[in-house]
Amino acid sequence: MHGLIGKFRAHPGQRDTLAAILLQGINAMPGCLSYVVAEDPEDADALWITEVWDSADSHRASLALPAVREAIAKAMPLIAGFDSHVQTRPIGGHGLPAA
Amino acid sequence: MHGLIGKFRAHPGQRDTLAAILLQGINAMPGCLSYVVAEDPEDADALWITEVWDSADSHRASLALPAVREAIAKAMPLIAGFDSHVQTRPIGGHGLPAA
Repeated sequence: MHGLIGKFRAHPGQRDTLAAILLQGINAMPGCLSYVVAEDPEDADALWITEVWDSADSHRASLALPAVREAIAKAMPLIAGFDSHVQTRPIGGHGLPAA
Repeated sequence: MHGLIGKFRAHPGQRDTLAAILLQGINAMPGCLSYVVAEDPEDADALWITEVWDSADSHRASLALPAVREAIAKAMPLIAGFDSHVQTRPIGGHGLPAA
């Protein structure tokens, strides 16, 4: 499996709008096992995105999906920066669909 | 929802053992919506644990479950430290059970 943990920084006051965009169109991404958008309770402009994919290829392919391209185009102007971005190798857990 | 993102550091050579312990007994934790154990591909001793709970209370209550207490007791001697630990407020996503 392929995992991503990222902290996105929205422009001031834009976090809710950014979160709504990131939550659009994520239910039809082949190979996406988990995609969670979370607010940082101590940082009013920060969102944490945690993702689990069956493979890095599936993640890469998702970036070409029309709904995802549209969401990225809408989201980019709202993003001030990426505070951290980590790639992981998920090995198991609870709440993932059976492989 | 209540979320946690943590980076655990195992004592050298103990990551696989630690991961196996962390993956035990996590399927019967009431209120746990997602619990993913992932290796850090660039840090041979590091594991990332990402968790989503229906509430902070459910997470707190899980720490008293016999299976969890047993796992913590086995895991602690293998853990060299916690590199980072962030609390989040998940607002939605894909792969979470319907509320």
